[in-house]
Amino acid sequence: MASEYPPSLQSCLSLLVLFLETAFILIFYFFVSYEVPSSLEYFHNYSYSAFQDVNVMVVFGFGFFLTFLKRYRLSSVGFTLLITALGVQWALIVEGFLFYFSSGKVNINLDSILRGTLSITAVHISAGALLGKVNPVQLTCMAMMEVTAFAVDRWIITDILKVESHVSMMHVHIFGAYFGLVVSGWFCPPLLKNKFEKEKSGRLSDLFSMIGTLFLWMFWPTFNSVLLSDDVEKRKAIYNTYYAIAVSAVTAFALSAASNRNGKFDMVHVRTATLAGGVALGFSAGTISHPCVAMTLGLLASTIAVLWSRCVQMHWNPALKIHDTCGVHYTFGLPGLLGGIAHVILAVYNNWDNLSMEGYSILIEVGALSFTVVMALGTGFFAGFLLTCKLWKAPPVSKYFDDQAYWEFPNLAVGF
Amino acid sequence: MASEYPPSLQSCLSLLVLFLETAFILIFYFFVSYEVPSSLEYFHNYSYSAFQDVNVMVVFGFGFFLTFLKRYRLSSVGFTLLITALGVQWALIVEGFLFYFSSGKVNINLDSILRGTLSITAVHISAGALLGKVNPVQLTCMAMMEVTAFAVDRWIITDILKVESHVSMMHVHIFGAYFGLVVSGWFCPPLLKNKFEKEKSGRLSDLFSMIGTLFLWMFWPTFNSVLLSDDVEKRKAIYNTYYAIAVSAVTAFALSAASNRNGKFDMVHVRTATLAGGVALGFSAGTISHPCVAMTLGLLASTIAVLWSRCVQMHWNPALKIHDTCGVHYTFGLPGLLGGIAHVILAVYNNWDNLSMEGYSILIEVGALSFTVVMALGTGFFAGFLLTCKLWKAPPVSKYFDDQAYWEFPNLAVGF
Amino acid sequence: MASEYPPSLQSCLSLLVLFLETAFILIFYFFVSYEVPSSLEYFHNYSYSAFQDVNVMVVFGFGFFLTFLKRYRLSSVGFTLLITALGVQWALIVEGFLFYFSSGKVNINLDSILRGTLSITAVHISAGALLGKVNPVQLTCMAMMEVTAFAVDRWIITDILKVESHVSMMHVHIFGAYFGLVVSGWFCPPLLKNKFEKEKSGRLSDLFSMIGTLFLWMFWPTFNSVLLSDDVEKRKAIYNTYYAIAVSAVTAFALSAASNRNGKFDMVHVRTATLAGGVALGFSAGTISHPCVAMTLGLLASTIAVLWSRCVQMHWNPALKIHDTCGVHYTFGLPGLLGGIAHVILAVYNNWDNLSMEGYSILIEVGALSFTVVMALGTGFFAGFLLTCKLWKAPPVSKYFDDQAYWEFPNLAVGF
Repeated sequence: MASEYPPSLQSCLSLLVLFLETAFILIFYFFVSYEVPSSLEYFHNYSYSAFQDVNVMVVFGFGFFLTFLKRYRLSSVGFTLLITALGVQWALIVEGFLFYFSSGKVNINLDSILRGTLSITAVHISAGALLGKVNPVQLTCMAMMEVTAFAVDRWIITDILKVESHVSMMHVHIFGAYFGLVVSGWFCPPLLKNKFEKEKSGRLSDLFSMIGTLFLWMFWPTFNSVLLSDDVEKRKAIYNTYYAIAVSAVTAFALSAASNRNGKFDMVHVRTATLAGGVALGFSAGTISHPCVAMTLGLLASTIAVLWSRCVQMHWNPALKIHDTCGVHYTFGLPGLLGGIAHVILAVYNNWDNLSMEGYSILIEVGALSFTVVMALGTGFFAGFLLTCKLWKAPPVSKYFDDQAYWEFPNLAVGF
Repeated sequence: MASEYPPSLQSCLSLLVLFLETAFILIFYFFVSYEVPSSLEYFHNYSYSAFQDVNVMVVFGFGFFLTFLKRYRLSSVGFTLLITALGVQWALIVEGFLFYFSSGKVNINLDSILRGTLSITAVHISAGALLGKVNPVQLTCMAMMEVTAFAVDRWIITDILKVESHVSMMHVHIFGAYFGLVVSGWFCPPLLKNKFEKEKSGRLSDLFSMIGTLFLWMFWPTFNSVLLSDDVEKRKAIYNTYYAIAVSAVTAFALSAASNRNGKFDMVHVRTATLAGGVALGFSAGTISHPCVAMTLGLLASTIAVLWSRCVQMHWNPALKIHDTCGVHYTFGLPGLLGGIAHVILAVYNNWDNLSMEGYSILIEVGALSFTVVMALGTGFFAGFLLTCKLWKAPPVSKYFDDQAYWEFPNLAVGF
Repeated sequence: MASEYPPSLQSCLSLLVLFLETAFILIFYFFVSYEVPSSLEYFHNYSYSAFQDVNVMVVFGFGFFLTFLKRYRLSSVGFTLLITALGVQWALIVEGFLFYFSSGKVNINLDSILRGTLSITAVHISAGALLGKVNPVQLTCMAMMEVTAFAVDRWIITDILKVESHVSMMHVHIFGAYFGLVVSGWFCPPLLKNKFEKEKSGRLSDLFSMIGTLFLWMFWPTFNSVLLSDDVEKRKAIYNTYYAIAVSAVTAFALSAASNRNGKFDMVHVRTATLAGGVALGFSAGTISHPCVAMTLGLLASTIAVLWSRCVQMHWNPALKIHDTCGVHYTFGLPGLLGGIAHVILAVYNNWDNLSMEGYSILIEVGALSFTVVMALGTGFFAGFLLTCKLWKAPPVSKYFDDQAYWEFPNLAVGF
């Protein structure tokens, strides 16, 4: 059976990717060098095993997290790998020029690879919203644009607004979610308002997706603590995230059964709401000093995720003409916002006595949060506009959610 | 198709879980706080990456280890996550009050989270014996009871019998196995004596199960060494467990083929007997000073597991009216007992010259072991009695081993 | 349905494996002991978490990497476990006698377990070339012979040619690939020249294979850096490998689509060429001081892998009468050779000024590389000859690539 997929994706993707890769190598040649051996302390601060936890989350965790569509599993895993491998290099370059550029060179170390890897999370979250609706060429372009936009966003809120570097990185969930949602608005044809047969998950896909979800769930304490340099804060971030994500897993099960008419669990909630607690804790994991605050945040985040998914999404998404395949809005966007707001409220509460002095810095946090949302919406709108360009040969709606459009299979008839 | 599963599980599970979670948050609010920053040394002693190894074993390893039933894979993974997330919080509270309660507060740190996670292993082992026969409400109740019972058991054998804390934790396999077996005695209807179609494993389920088994196998050296504080003992525990579990994997393959009439391997043995060596080494991993002792123990444990599974189980289980879905008796129970006995024999051998002096402490070990078995049998019997209560709406036998009873599927007809 | 597989595999495999295991325990009893506590520093140098990364790669990564054949998944995972568990013990003994034997005892520590685990990679690579064509008895024999041959090879090139220990271990990919290829020449019946139905991969097998591939991909920086003792070199090895493997993943996608007539991706390339960069960096990861050199190597390695797989293999393999199931020639063999040659060229380039002084050591590197290839070809030829012996009851061609020949399934009709 000949593929109906336009064969010229071939030249388009290969040329684009090889061009980017060659450009990256040249930029690395001229501008990048390894840090001088004297600054070895970085290596111990951000330990290699913590980096590997994050690496496993981003490559393996997100890759399998997105395998829930029963006909789009290989693409989910494969494109996550492609985007990570390409995006990390670009993130290193962009962030290097913005943050670490000195005397004509960008010095890189494990810390910069780690930050690059964390930035890629934004792209994977956006890719979740677009899952199955864009081809790898579009995905690559989006990754390049989003990495740039997020680096600029981070640069503005750390260098101009003077927000802490760790906090700025935790904007990644909000940025990724709203960027992805706005882009998805450009890829929401009328037909999609009714659920596709191919858009459904299956028992097996759900199980593969659980592989990724569990790795994200288990290593989330590392994600929230890896950039903190103070040992006491790091430790607190680990504990708080652990409790929050445990509570959000429990809540996800309880509310999933409670909101189902047969009292059954829905894998959508188990997959998404379990992670909401980790997302919500991103901003304040290192500063919350009592576990029950973290647990309450986890409970709230999970509740919002389940309720939005069950009650609001079906009215909200069609009204705004967006189509969010993976539910990134309630998995990453809303819990991220909740976490940002909670961070501000906690700061107000902790500094109630000298609010006049600390008030300015709290206002700045609010400003940074709003700026990230606006930046994500703005750059996402622009990126979405560019991605609808005919040059990219976007797949027709009939080819949505289908591995067959992108992968050569030895035998098409048999699915396993 | 309307579900025949009683819809009131909905209110029951959700209410129970939300009630527990709210209670936990309140208890944490009133009684739990993070340890004061001065005692930072704990953080380095029990390192975070060792904790993550154990976390991966308990959440991911056990979750996928139990996916071998071909129609019960999602429940295996999902309920393992639910039980872990809920159980760890309860374990922290119970163990906190029993072991770490001072001046009205329970101080928690990475060490207590680690011990909580290790305790949950008992629940997962028991859940293996009951796999597919109880609903999540029953599983949750059982988890709460078992965590409490095991904490009390540990408290008695460490605080009263003065057994080492590490050794007391390694009773977890024995406790989990015999607790689960006794509970399973309450859920063994006549029909189950003939093997169900749904109780079978399949090629794909076996492969998913291997994902979990391999993670358990690889990280078992961490499990056996993580609580040891002496560096030399820790190192020995790692080496001994590594050799023992390697030998038991090899033996499992050899005996599985030898005892099969076609000379083929049986996945049941590969899944279970490979782990027996790690279980058997739990007690004495840190004290054995020669690898060949550890290897012999691994060989024996694996042999017992394969032979029991092949020859004894089919007569023993119906005679005692128990039904052990996952074979936890020969995977965890018997190797655990072997390890306990070997621990005593090695202590006698090592202290042969001053047996009169050390004899008392060796007797105490024997007493602790017997006490754990009796405690597991007793509390398991009581827990089983409570779980048969009509309030929990136990699933009918026709709904055993079936994901469909608990999960909402988008399409029921297609299995993948 | 009665199995047509010769039932006497039963006694043969079990006897062989149990004999080996007993012999190992006896050898351990007489000759092996744990290192004396004073030399504790080894434990910190080669940290446990780095060992676990490598362990996960060898047991889990390779196990699932080889699951791409749709009817041979259980065997891939199972036999990888068997070979690792048995082979590591033998590697410890052989390497112990060759490298660490002093005063009648072999002292073992984490470092020797780590080296044993790394050596087993050679066996897994060879097993990839033979995947599905030999039975576990033959695989076990091959593992024993290959571990011995590779240890002798390493001993000659470190003790006689005075090549660095780290570099000698990185010969593992080349040794494994060419040993396996020569052995596969003995198992290439005429029928196999046309592709079997059973030799095909499927969507699901490809997904399982990606689980292994991703773990290999993520932890390859650990693989290349774990044996380096200098902290600066270790760090460089991590960075260089990370960039090289990222570039080779990107290149694999680009060239896979470019070389496919429909412009689609081929899982064969994604599975194999993504790893080529890591293999190519093995020799020189710690010495390359600029990322763009590593990236260029990654690009070249991946290009060679894709082009060989697409253009050369179909003519080359039948001409030489070899049959390489997993494509180890272009995944491990050629990138390994490329890495060896690059290592030599870089050494010449870096020592251009005092080439007369350093020339000898560079010549030695060339000699070591050639010696490993010759040793692999020679011992492989001999091993292949022994493996065709009737005693091992090699499976008939009709039983190739089939789990059913080795595993007892509860129900034969249903595939999942």
